[in-house]
Amino acid sequence: MNVERHPHRLTSVPLTDVEFRDVFWAPRIETNRSTTLNIEYEQCKKTGRIDAWRWRAGRRHKPHIFWDSDVAKWIEAAAYSLATRRDRGLERRIDAVVEMMAEAQGADGYLNSHFQLVEPEKRWSNLRDWHELYCAGHLMEAGVAYEQATGKRKLVDVMCRYADYIGKVFGRGPGQLRGYPGHEEIELALVKLYRATGREGYLRLSKFFIDERGKRPHYFDIEARRRGEGPESFWARSYAYNQSHVPVREQAEVVGHAVRACYLYAGMADVAAETGDKTLLRACRRLWRNLTERRMYITGGIGPTAANEGFTVDYDLPNESGYAETCAAIALVFWAHRMLHLEADARYADVMERALYNGVLSGVSLDGQRFFYANPLTAYPGMAAFTPPHVTTKRQAWFGCACCPPNIARLIASLPGYAYSQSKDAAWIHLYAAGEACVRVGDHEVTLRQRTRYPWDGRVRISVHPEAPSRFTLALRIPGWSRGATLKVNARGVRVDAITTGGYAKIERRWTRGDTVALNLPMPVERVEAHPRVRQDCGCVALQRGPIVYCLEEVDNGRDLGDIALPAKARLRARMDRGLLGGVVVITGEALRRDGSVWGGELYRAVRSKPRRVGIKAIPYCVWANRAEGEMLVWIREA
Amino acid sequence: MNVERHPHRLTSVPLTDVEFRDVFWAPRIETNRSTTLNIEYEQCKKTGRIDAWRWRAGRRHKPHIFWDSDVAKWIEAAAYSLATRRDRGLERRIDAVVEMMAEAQGADGYLNSHFQLVEPEKRWSNLRDWHELYCAGHLMEAGVAYEQATGKRKLVDVMCRYADYIGKVFGRGPGQLRGYPGHEEIELALVKLYRATGREGYLRLSKFFIDERGKRPHYFDIEARRRGEGPESFWARSYAYNQSHVPVREQAEVVGHAVRACYLYAGMADVAAETGDKTLLRACRRLWRNLTERRMYITGGIGPTAANEGFTVDYDLPNESGYAETCAAIALVFWAHRMLHLEADARYADVMERALYNGVLSGVSLDGQRFFYANPLTAYPGMAAFTPPHVTTKRQAWFGCACCPPNIARLIASLPGYAYSQSKDAAWIHLYAAGEACVRVGDHEVTLRQRTRYPWDGRVRISVHPEAPSRFTLALRIPGWSRGATLKVNARGVRVDAITTGGYAKIERRWTRGDTVALNLPMPVERVEAHPRVRQDCGCVALQRGPIVYCLEEVDNGRDLGDIALPAKARLRARMDRGLLGGVVVITGEALRRDGSVWGGELYRAVRSKPRRVGIKAIPYCVWANRAEGEMLVWIREA
Repeated sequence: MNVERHPHRLTSVPLTDVEFRDVFWAPRIETNRSTTLNIEYEQCKKTGRIDAWRWRAGRRHKPHIFWDSDVAKWIEAAAYSLATRRDRGLERRIDAVVEMMAEAQGADGYLNSHFQLVEPEKRWSNLRDWHELYCAGHLMEAGVAYEQATGKRKLVDVMCRYADYIGKVFGRGPGQLRGYPGHEEIELALVKLYRATGREGYLRLSKFFIDERGKRPHYFDIEARRRGEGPESFWARSYAYNQSHVPVREQAEVVGHAVRACYLYAGMADVAAETGDKTLLRACRRLWRNLTERRMYITGGIGPTAANEGFTVDYDLPNESGYAETCAAIALVFWAHRMLHLEADARYADVMERALYNGVLSGVSLDGQRFFYANPLTAYPGMAAFTPPHVTTKRQAWFGCACCPPNIARLIASLPGYAYSQSKDAAWIHLYAAGEACVRVGDHEVTLRQRTRYPWDGRVRISVHPEAPSRFTLALRIPGWSRGATLKVNARGVRVDAITTGGYAKIERRWTRGDTVALNLPMPVERVEAHPRVRQDCGCVALQRGPIVYCLEEVDNGRDLGDIALPAKARLRARMDRGLLGGVVVITGEALRRDGSVWGGELYRAVRSKPRRVGIKAIPYCVWANRAEGEMLVWIREA
Repeated sequence: MNVERHPHRLTSVPLTDVEFRDVFWAPRIETNRSTTLNIEYEQCKKTGRIDAWRWRAGRRHKPHIFWDSDVAKWIEAAAYSLATRRDRGLERRIDAVVEMMAEAQGADGYLNSHFQLVEPEKRWSNLRDWHELYCAGHLMEAGVAYEQATGKRKLVDVMCRYADYIGKVFGRGPGQLRGYPGHEEIELALVKLYRATGREGYLRLSKFFIDERGKRPHYFDIEARRRGEGPESFWARSYAYNQSHVPVREQAEVVGHAVRACYLYAGMADVAAETGDKTLLRACRRLWRNLTERRMYITGGIGPTAANEGFTVDYDLPNESGYAETCAAIALVFWAHRMLHLEADARYADVMERALYNGVLSGVSLDGQRFFYANPLTAYPGMAAFTPPHVTTKRQAWFGCACCPPNIARLIASLPGYAYSQSKDAAWIHLYAAGEACVRVGDHEVTLRQRTRYPWDGRVRISVHPEAPSRFTLALRIPGWSRGATLKVNARGVRVDAITTGGYAKIERRWTRGDTVALNLPMPVERVEAHPRVRQDCGCVALQRGPIVYCLEEVDNGRDLGDIALPAKARLRARMDRGLLGGVVVITGEALRRDGSVWGGELYRAVRSKPRRVGIKAIPYCVWANRAEGEMLVWIREA
């Protein structure tokens, strides 16, 4: 394999070089640090995950096949937090776990609490259903993050040894397995490990897993026969479930388990970035379009059904039974971030922002203590009675399959890392949030300071502070949701249209210390409609203001939210309510609804209801279910 | 137990005394006889059901726990068909099966192909999950029907022996089991057997099963422990699944598996009728109200979820995932028919009619060869991909669990038996259909002849032919859906309101041969709304004309039916289309829809669509899916 020069256009600004001091994310990041990381550790401790390596036959808390990944994501989350704020107690906790892992690691490099302690004879025997490579990938990410945060190399060294061993087990040589993970994740992790170590073998191994996926004869068939099972007995029925139904370069539709899918696509984008593989990039683009043009909720949630925790068919976006796993929206952010760096196109940042502010953030309560696994777009009475136990209208403290809580913790802890990028001759701002970043443009360092109340207000002041006066481009994302953006540079108006390409307004000039840019993104309340093929949203509008998608909650609007109808011309007002839900902009207006109290016993009758006017109040979707439990609704009928 | 005089007010007019010669049912009854009964026999033969009793260890087609019930329902259906039209070939087929059963019956009277041939050691060991008493009940119904049709007593005698044995096994005496069926059905069957034989023991046994149900200590707990299982390991989690969570007289909400529920309620109504048990009757009334005022589709379909094949919570009537099993609508008809006879109130007949013309009849194709198990109120692209395999948008030839096909066959074959009733001083007409009936009023026989094109036209001419001139009441149902009914007796107008009680216009007079009654039930196209609490139907209307509920199909209206919006004032026209679907009245009108072709790739956008006018055409729900496979929709958005 020829490792080419990176064809990706942007590189991230490291987390350590960005600080958020904004009204929206900074409090969430602080809650994540001070509360979520602790309770997740306690949950991992209580459930035996932390001490998995101390398990011995006969004791309870037998390590489960995916436990290592939960601990790994917690370490990664904690590492990101340490990167911006040291915490000795937290470090000691991590060091203790890492110590345990290092001791447990096999002489050959193998490391998996379940398969070392519980079923050692089953190592690598069922890549399709079990999670060995997935756990390995998460531990690699944790190792890289922890080293970058603290400089401590123990975990990343452990994981290099493990990766080296995996590279011996898997490959096209004699005696090697031509397998790949049933749950993707290691693909992107190996690229991280490659970037952290410079060892090309890891990149090659990642590419191997991607290239082998879905080839005939099918590895999961071979493997099943080796176990003495018929391949047709696969419980999920189709290899589309894990995106191995055809080779990845032939895939045109996002299918199967949504988290697996987007982890794979993120890995594909990474390998495309590192190798310049155009066929992989084309597959990524095709899959991206299918996902974002046909299979994504307005919240950025993806994967509408619990049946496969994933995708169904085009335009099938049920609100009631919408699964939209928190992890899937997070995986979409990972993929979007990579595509953005490859293509420098704001389409990707738009989706990333949509998911972050809505379908990701809904996954955690304001107090940082409870989590949603599923993020449907409506809640209704009795919903919990007939959904799986992890799909509820109340966030839960933990889950048997606890992938989401540490996943959202690591994303929130690393969030400032998603806001800025740098390239040879430009500094890029993707997300608006008060604070500052130190960006490298070519050989120069430039400090960018943002003053804004985004996402509640679309006015963003940016002051630019190059080390020395220099010519470069400041690229500001003009969000897809915005219309009529205006821009001033040092108080002089600039025509936004004229300088915008790929969704970024590109201000190319010689910058000197203290230059200011004033970007104004008008934020009227927008009524959004969905494509006519999305049957569940026909006749409905969603309210959106800036990047924030709104919903109605029963606590504000009474029961039977589905009966509320918003006249097309009803005026909608937005105002900041500082006392509500940590301070949010609410939307109020007048709507129509029938009066259920005047109905007799009849369930059906010839139409004769006269709707009456009622006030409505909408809150951001991301903060629903932080007050009384009750109904919730995103898509509101239009009268 | 004191068997009191029947408190029920009406008795049915036997099937043999009624003839349908109408445009709607008569062709269905003929197709049922000439096609459905044959193909169901062939399916039972092919799948091993017919020859279940010839099974020996090692052979394929091992009798399943519910197979006897499938054959039983087929015999019952065939018997009803023979009752109105003899068919020697059919009789020979039945006789052969009955012969086999008679030979197989145990010396003690026990009869069950699965538990005699496959797992003899497990007899009566799991009433909760297995179907012994259920199969017994269906065979009893078959025996009674076959005797009434042909006079042949062999099967009913076999079943009396079995019932006598069951009466020894179950009871409150020493050594007896205080159990009852997990799948109810035998309760109503025992009352049929009691009525056919006059043996009170069968009625007592039915009442025993009903009275014991749900008592503490719970029999299914006891039984589970006897099997060495913890009762908490019950797969359905709650005894509400089989309506044994509390004693039946304490039940106020319809819960659990819908077919089981309505078979039980029908049995309760039967026992209430035969014993005058007011507490049972009150429970029936309460459950009826809960079901029909909060848990029934407009089609008469019931049981909205596949999860328990049954009920969820009040007002939860999803259209997309609506299960509405054909058998459940049939069970509702059985229960409604019994309540009608107990209370002589047209509310029950209204529901019976609603189910028959809509949610029952949709269960079978026009050619009588294919069946729906589930009857959701909408079909959409890709639906089949994520529903259980027996839930499809195309009727199927058969099912592994084949309860629905023979159930609908027996109902259609016996349908004329639902149209008329008799009482001491009145002849009752519940269903309008051209043809005639011979009704006993007190000591007199009265022939009633109907001329009508109902349900396509609301004009019904009835000529009354008493044996001799006599005074009695002719009670004509004024359907709940009708407004402005008019009535003439021998061409003289009668004020309908003045003579209507309990939903029946009661014409009391001295009738002489050839008197005529002209009932006119205006049939405008009605827009129907659902209670505001039914969130899935908010903002929508269903079109109904007479008893017929309409739907839109893709073949007439194109794709994306959900995007069609019907202006509140749009004129809707009804016309008979003789060439369509065997001749049906279609509804046409003008509606609005967006133009999906002018959308670009975007999935969401700020509202700017301008809907355009389009013609729509609705067909009766009961005949959907008889042409090209595609979308279907009952609840249409109102613009």
